Amino acid sequence: MDSDYGVPRELSEVQKKRALYQPELPPCLQGTTVRVVYGDAAIAADPAGAHVISHAFPHTYGQPLAHFLRKTAVVPDAKVISEHLAVRVGIVFCGRQSPGGHNVVWGLYEAIKAHNQNSKLIGFLGGSDGLLAQRTLEITDEVLASYKNQGGYDMLGRTKDQIRTTEQVNGAMASCQALKLDALVIIGGVTSNTDAAQLAETFAEAKCATKVVGVPVTLNGDLKNQFVETTVGFDTICKVNAQLISNMCTDALSAEKYYYFIRLMGRKASHVALECALQSHPNMVILGEEVAASKLTIFDITKQICDAVQARAEKDKNHGVILIPEGLVESIPELYALLQEIHGLHGQGVSVENISSQLSPWASALFEFLPPFIRKQLLLHPESDDSAQLSQIETEKLLAQLVETEMNRRLKEGTYKGKKFNAICHFFGYQARGALPSKFDCDYAYVLGHVCYHIIAAGLNGYMATVTNLKSPVNKWRCGAAPISSMMTVKRWSRGPSATQIGKPAVHMASVDLKGKAYEVLRQNSSSFLLEDVYRNPGPLQFEGPGADSKPISLCVEDQDYMGRIKKLQEYLEKVKSIVKPGCSQDVLKAALSAMSSVTETLNIMTSSSTGQTL
Amino acid sequence: MDSDYGVPRELSEVQKKRALYQPELPPCLQGTTVRVVYGDAAIAADPAGAHVISHAFPHTYGQPLAHFLRKTAVVPDAKVISEHLAVRVGIVFCGRQSPGGHNVVWGLYEAIKAHNQNSKLIGFLGGSDGLLAQRTLEITDEVLASYKNQGGYDMLGRTKDQIRTTEQVNGAMASCQALKLDALVIIGGVTSNTDAAQLAETFAEAKCATKVVGVPVTLNGDLKNQFVETTVGFDTICKVNAQLISNMCTDALSAEKYYYFIRLMGRKASHVALECALQSHPNMVILGEEVAASKLTIFDITKQICDAVQARAEKDKNHGVILIPEGLVESIPELYALLQEIHGLHGQGVSVENISSQLSPWASALFEFLPPFIRKQLLLHPESDDSAQLSQIETEKLLAQLVETEMNRRLKEGTYKGKKFNAICHFFGYQARGALPSKFDCDYAYVLGHVCYHIIAAGLNGYMATVTNLKSPVNKWRCGAAPISSMMTVKRWSRGPSATQIGKPAVHMASVDLKGKAYEVLRQNSSSFLLEDVYRNPGPLQFEGPGADSKPISLCVEDQDYMGRIKKLQEYLEKVKSIVKPGCSQDVLKAALSAMSSVTETLNIMTSSSTGQTL
Repeated sequence: MDSDYGVPRELSEVQKKRALYQPELPPCLQGTTVRVVYGDAAIAADPAGAHVISHAFPHTYGQPLAHFLRKTAVVPDAKVISEHLAVRVGIVFCGRQSPGGHNVVWGLYEAIKAHNQNSKLIGFLGGSDGLLAQRTLEITDEVLASYKNQGGYDMLGRTKDQIRTTEQVNGAMASCQALKLDALVIIGGVTSNTDAAQLAETFAEAKCATKVVGVPVTLNGDLKNQFVETTVGFDTICKVNAQLISNMCTDALSAEKYYYFIRLMGRKASHVALECALQSHPNMVILGEEVAASKLTIFDITKQICDAVQARAEKDKNHGVILIPEGLVESIPELYALLQEIHGLHGQGVSVENISSQLSPWASALFEFLPPFIRKQLLLHPESDDSAQLSQIETEKLLAQLVETEMNRRLKEGTYKGKKFNAICHFFGYQARGALPSKFDCDYAYVLGHVCYHIIAAGLNGYMATVTNLKSPVNKWRCGAAPISSMMTVKRWSRGPSATQIGKPAVHMASVDLKGKAYEVLRQNSSSFLLEDVYRNPGPLQFEGPGADSKPISLCVEDQDYMGRIKKLQEYLEKVKSIVKPGCSQDVLKAALSAMSSVTETLNIMTSSSTGQTL
Repeated sequence: MDSDYGVPRELSEVQKKRALYQPELPPCLQGTTVRVVYGDAAIAADPAGAHVISHAFPHTYGQPLAHFLRKTAVVPDAKVISEHLAVRVGIVFCGRQSPGGHNVVWGLYEAIKAHNQNSKLIGFLGGSDGLLAQRTLEITDEVLASYKNQGGYDMLGRTKDQIRTTEQVNGAMASCQALKLDALVIIGGVTSNTDAAQLAETFAEAKCATKVVGVPVTLNGDLKNQFVETTVGFDTICKVNAQLISNMCTDALSAEKYYYFIRLMGRKASHVALECALQSHPNMVILGEEVAASKLTIFDITKQICDAVQARAEKDKNHGVILIPEGLVESIPELYALLQEIHGLHGQGVSVENISSQLSPWASALFEFLPPFIRKQLLLHPESDDSAQLSQIETEKLLAQLVETEMNRRLKEGTYKGKKFNAICHFFGYQARGALPSKFDCDYAYVLGHVCYHIIAAGLNGYMATVTNLKSPVNKWRCGAAPISSMMTVKRWSRGPSATQIGKPAVHMASVDLKGKAYEVLRQNSSSFLLEDVYRNPGPLQFEGPGADSKPISLCVEDQDYMGRIKKLQEYLEKVKSIVKPGCSQDVLKAALSAMSSVTETLNIMTSSSTGQTL
């Protein structure tokens, strides 16, 4: 058993060259001495949820932000960590494999060994199952040799990943205690990092010595908040997919007879679809967030696509490429409602055969309208987080079929005069997940691994490793850590008048920001994308030459430097203090009081009017 | 109309760098003076078909091979072509787009202009439709600028491609005459080159001055014979697909819960599947040629896969990757017979709804056994060459479903004790066709374009441009031309006792050679591929660094130097002549006579026993 994990792999020429690639470290992590400086206590972005969160996380909520600085940095309150006892650290892959994951292990290993050769890094084999079963592999230079800068999670493996039930949490604690772990590092997305925060809290409550650290690694790019700019794997996934989408665009343009409907893996949020669209300029992309915001029905979307096909046909274009995020189905209101009914019946133990007969009349009518293949897919058991099995629901086929029917109707009616509509459907997902990670993902993951060590050395618990200012070169990257609980939000569902159900605090996936710059770039170009075929081929992922150092467009256009702004604000406050010292003129003091009163009032209004995230 | 073709494209950084890449020329084509030397008259490889072919191609069969040599080459009968009148040449893309096609146009353009600035290269817009409709675009430096070393056929486009009916052939001739073309260059695969040969013959018969030249460009890699080692596009397609397959392998190994069934575009022959298997080492590949040779039924194949799944489960491996060529369905005897019946009924004008009721009892039983989705796909109209619509028939889903049923049965019965079998299906085809061409395809296509010019300058008609010794560096490549008719074969079908139907001579697709070295390499490794997960990831297509100069493995392991051997034989014959000159001793003469008599007898027996290719 597990003979597949951690064994040396035969590498191809390209892989061998990649294995030799040494990611750079930002100046703050170079050398063996790092300073840590603590900021203010971090709070949840949603004040309405803060109470619920602080109640649920008494030990780990409200801890300060941590910034790691180079030894020579001139910062008054910085603490130099000079004592580096030997530590025992466990590490586990959770959730869908994401390119770059191996480099977190490598970075952490390098940092651990650089500070104390007697420290040990212990990998759990087979994800959370291995954590509970104490199946381990000690990480060594030999083990790492054929996994540096390589894709997949096959060095340690992963299983169905969840550490949530009392039994699982206790099992994880038992393992950490049995293995005498000083820390446990959990690599994953929103669900796994929520689990990490819960583990940290439970361990603290139980006085278990193991500190828990989370690392943002998910291809979906949906772990995104004031502290986390992007996740490891997102860049590679988008580059691999954008290349394939571009190839399809070139193909469509060469043959001029097909519409390609391409569904993209990326869970409920549409980050992958947005980024791929920005890289490859397909004719259309239907973002789930747009659909949800405008409450578009499946018929509205069909009509939008049909109108686009018709507009293109009038310009003699009978081909096209349309992107669809895999989560779209949950963003379409009536399909979401239908899925909720189905999942409810699943929850009641109704068998798949009987579900359709127990739907409400309204849901039943919709269900019967849908083609048989999609009915079968909608009936699949929901995932552990209660969302539909998005990878298995072929929304692209449903849309292609509805569009074809409508275009045939228009053709017959004479309102459409173009060529017969031909669609070919694709799902791009699995073929990108195991890809060799891009240089950016290699660097980002490796640095995060190093940061994990410094979090552990500082004795922090319930934190996530963060690297910010990512759009700048590595030597400008800022390294830090933020309590995971401060990234949490609380969902509320209205259950009839005056009845509100409150969800458990969790790191929820971030939607595409429809007010963000990346989306703005898309909107500004959407009509030329639609009609002018300004397809762009970023080419296959390169490791040398042009393109090798590119980063996600959505990362680079956004102005995300939250940590930088927090720092800037602190500087302003210090400045006011230093100007308005006892002895300053009455006028200066009055001006300062007046200005600061207005500032605090504005901020008070802004924060109290925010009623938290509701669904 | 056609506003999309030939317009300048916005290129990405990687594309811009590629646009600057200048392919090398072999020494024989460098400079402006090239010698041509003619070999013996080329004959068809199949002596039994030679008579039929020579009858069908009285003007163009039996012409000599041509070799292009550098000016300084010391060859007695070489002819230096020094007069380079201005020529007008037409060029057209036919058939499925294949990466590198644009470079044939570029290479031809460079050669034409280098020899006479007044020559013109005229591209037909929209494939054979554009040829018949005289829709043209003059190729210029400006037009070429954003298409050099780029994928797709979007510089000129292509349509449903066939120049076969009398009407089409006459239309093509009318276009060539109206445009006063000295030559017409047809870029395509087996079908298009067969059409090219037919056009050449018809033009010669009609004393039309336009010479016709074919170029071997098809992603399928199935235009392969004694003169053609591989086709333009095959290398790129295999590299792009092998990368994705490798990613799936890494993914399977990381998650350890899925079997990925991957169908590969490549028409009836399994060259793409074989090459991809050699590059990425998946657990299984089911070659159509093996299935046909062993007459395996769909149930035999299902059993093979089930046994493999079971053997792997016994080693605790519950994941795997299985490759399936898109042509497999036509290699499975009973499915082929069923398809033949269906196509026959199509031919009789039976409507799709009524076909199933008119099948023979045997075919009907099989048809009813198959899942509904595949029934619908089998009922699709056949392609113009009478083969099934392979890209639309999801053989991988059929197999996955049959394997799942059988594994569930074994599980229930207790003969299989592994985890529940989970399959995920994929079709890799369209996403590779528009890819940026590999360096090899860029070079090969560019050199072929140059060769086209020299064929035209030599006044040859009905030839295909050839470049051999491709596995060596470019400076060792040999350039030549061979009559397309000598690559033809004639198919015979037995229609009851003593009744044989003879097909029209055609360049038929080459099957994977089950006695060849590439297949041998696969066989030698098949059991380690199956059980040991020796997955190999060649990485994404690179343009710099390691991997950038790699070539297809199946090209490199084969010892294909036919042209070199022909040359070597001529040297031996010359040597015998020079030794056995009048005046030599009686003994030497006797020895020579005896040896040569034995040689000729052996060859006579070999060539007369060959009864030609039968189906």
